[in-house]
Formats: sequence, structure tokens, C-alpha cells
Amino acid sequence: MRVRVLVRLKPGILDVQGAAVQKALAGLGFTEVTDLRVGKVIEVELQTATADAARARVGEMCRQLLANPVLEDYTIEMADDLARRGAVR
Amino acid sequence: MRVRVLVRLKPGILDVQGAAVQKALAGLGFTEVTDLRVGKVIEVELQTATADAARARVGEMCRQLLANPVLEDYTIEMADDLARRGAVR
Repeated sequence: MRVRVLVRLKPGILDVQGAAVQKALAGLGFTEVTDLRVGKVIEVELQTATADAARARVGEMCRQLLANPVLEDYTIEMADDLARRGAVR
Repeated sequence: MRVRVLVRLKPGILDVQGAAVQKALAGLGFTEVTDLRVGKVIEVELQTATADAARARVGEMCRQLLANPVLEDYTIEMADDLARRGAVR
């Protein structure tokens, strides 16, 4: 089972890396960027019987290790959510 | 226009951070994880007339700054791709 986790700073938290990238892009002429935030994507391959079990286990991993609940939010996306779009590669 | 960029190490490249996280998860009892890779997610808000223009500009940003073409692959996902699923927050 393939699961994708997105870990991002919570909305109120200053994203220093994002601000630096946005400034660098502006310096290259990409002045149309109005906001930019950088986070982590963690792609987990795990052996579970069902998609629901995989989602539950990955949620537990997020709470215990992958995300810092003080500063970060996380989103879990299953491979079948992803396959529904054409955007996966 | 809201665009999401996923930047990941190319398949053949050793992902040290991913290996460390996988090992830490195994230590916490998550032994069902068979593979784990860590990458970056960059969420860009930009002002363009059309979604196609936004995708083209973000592609240019990836080639010039956001991704290292030697080591990394990138995927561009538009907000409307994301809205089609229920997984966005």
C-alpha cells in the first residue's frame, strides 16, 4: 500500500525557507508569486491488509514521529486518491 | 492560482533521510514499512491569467531554481487536480 504524507508548517508559523525561495524567485523575474511555502512530502510503502488500515497506521506514524504537532499540520493521501487524477508520476 | 510542486530524489539516488526515518519508525514498532522516501512540497500562489500559464511558469521555476535536475524529479499539481479528490485540506 502506497501512502503519501504532506507535512507543512501551520498557517500562522513563519516559513523562513519559503520566504527565502520566494525572494530568490523574485530575483529571477518570477514576480507574480504572491505566496510560497515549503514543506515535506513523505512517501511510505507499507504492508497492510486494507487501505483503511494503512491510513490508520500512517496517521499513528505522523503523531509519533513524522510531524511536530506544535508547528506542523499533516495530510495523508492514499495511492487510490492519487490515481484518480492524472497528476501522478 | 494555487500550484503544488513535489520535488523528490530520483529513483536511483540514495535517500539518507528516508532511510533514517524508516529505521526510526521500525524502532517504534512500525515494522510493516517496506520503503520510505522524503522529499519537498512547495506550494506556490501566483497571479496568472490561466491555469496553463501558471503551470508553465511553475515549470520554469522548477527548472531554474526549485529542483536540482541532476538528483531530483519534480511533479506539478494544479489546485483543480487536487480539488477533484477529497484529500485536500
